[in-house]
Amino acid sequence: MTRGRFISLEGGEGAGKSTQARRLAAALDARGLRTLVTREPGGSEGAEAIRHLLMQGAVNRWSPHTEALLFAAARADHVEKTINPALGAGIWVIADRFIDSSRAYQGVAGGIDDAAIMALHGFGARGLLPDRTFVLEVAPDEGAARATGRDGAAADRFAARDGGFHDAVAAAFRDFAEREPDRVRLIAASGSVDAVTQALLAGLGDLLP
Amino acid sequence: MTRGRFISLEGGEGAGKSTQARRLAAALDARGLRTLVTREPGGSEGAEAIRHLLMQGAVNRWSPHTEALLFAAARADHVEKTINPALGAGIWVIADRFIDSSRAYQGVAGGIDDAAIMALHGFGARGLLPDRTFVLEVAPDEGAARATGRDGAAADRFAARDGGFHDAVAAAFRDFAEREPDRVRLIAASGSVDAVTQALLAGLGDLLP
Ligand SMILES: Nc1ncnc2c1ncn2[C@@H]1O[C@H](COP(=O)(O)OP(=O)(O)OP(=O)(O)O)[C@@H](O)[C@H]1O
Ligand SMILES: Nc1ncnc2c1ncn2[C@@H]1O[C@H](COP(=O)(O)OP(=O)(O)OP(=O)(O)O)[C@@H](O)[C@H]1O
Ligand SMILES: [Mg+2]
Ligand SMILES: [Mg+2]
Repeated sequence: MTRGRFISLEGGEGAGKSTQARRLAAALDARGLRTLVTREPGGSEGAEAIRHLLMQGAVNRWSPHTEALLFAAARADHVEKTINPALGAGIWVIADRFIDSSRAYQGVAGGIDDAAIMALHGFGARGLLPDRTFVLEVAPDEGAARATGRDGAAADRFAARDGGFHDAVAAAFRDFAEREPDRVRLIAASGSVDAVTQALLAGLGDLLP
Repeated sequence: MTRGRFISLEGGEGAGKSTQARRLAAALDARGLRTLVTREPGGSEGAEAIRHLLMQGAVNRWSPHTEALLFAAARADHVEKTINPALGAGIWVIADRFIDSSRAYQGVAGGIDDAAIMALHGFGARGLLPDRTFVLEVAPDEGAARATGRDGAAADRFAARDGGFHDAVAAAFRDFAEREPDRVRLIAASGSVDAVTQALLAGLGDLLP
């Protein structure tokens, strides 16, 4: 049994991650691959329970350090219960956010060292990295407009940030792509849904059977 | 304002930790000190919510690594929201379990390196250690009999362990006392409630004003 491939989609709010996760899975299904779409935080029973703790309550309910530990715990459960079993069964896993969101958000917002975030990931999820990570890039105001068009007022506490914050997150994702060019690829995501899906498939050329 | 002192009570189930936490607080109150009794996992609103996740569900709901991350997150919140503010206000804090329980239980039961548990503690709770830690020692069957006398069948999932497990936990606590003799003290706890409280007060002689 060939191990499945692990793909993550990253990017700011409203960039199209959830839309493209479904589209990409459908495109891979059409090529005869088995796929699983999952999301973070969450993606397993335990991780969804932790997600609930992270999403509810006041914006400053958790300190950056506590939040980083909770994200690492959720990701450890997600990897153990959902991602690794699927990959082992030959299924391609498409994750709507993964470790790079922690690096960008807890790193930028929480001021936590990238090395510390990666150490927690090494401990909890044994450092699992995707085979490929796509960063969907749209102008921050375009992402905000898309997200607002989808569910009216921005729904969760991650939305309530200023422009400087979103710029810093976008810069962090670009930095990851520069430092790990084989794994992390930037995708221009302001085009049509179909055009973006085609760009993702092209970016998987070397991994597809 | 003199910073308060931080005391933790450790030991196996039914050793008398909760009983002695209240008794010790009363004895210190009687000496004119302000005290706060708290417990782990829990001790702050966020940590109690995490405690709920840890205590509910099947015995193997969480892997040892995920569990260690959740305990570290709960402890980080407990220290930030409850313990440090109290100490800063001059209050003596008495914790019914703290980091040494993670070292003994997740270390022994989960097979997790002590260094890894301490690294998580260093990250989350900034490595805060008690000024003094008392390990209440009773024979494991005496502790089990006490706990059973208190609430009938052992109430939570930590109770459902065999004798070898309880011996290993007791050995871990003794090892901590050997390695950190200034902080960690063994207390024979099979005597009367009053006798044990007197032994604790004697063990605080150098810290009392
Ligand atoms: N290429 C596109 N062109 C126009 N609209 C799009 C495009 N991709 C997605 N959308 C729309 O934008 C909105 C946000 O998309 P989506 O929910 O996929 O983004 P997301 O990155 O998952 O956002 P979030 O970070 O909030 O989860 C949705 O209403 C979606 O239909
Ligand atoms: N010195 C003692 N002699 C006899 N009984 C005691 C003594 N200390 C406590 N007990 C009783 O033993 C039972 C267990 O005590 P306690 O709840 O304080 O233990 P604990 O260490 O907090 O247990 P757990 O680990 O389950 O929380 C209680 O019913 C308590 O009243
Ligand atoms: Mg989405
Ligand atoms: Mg107790």
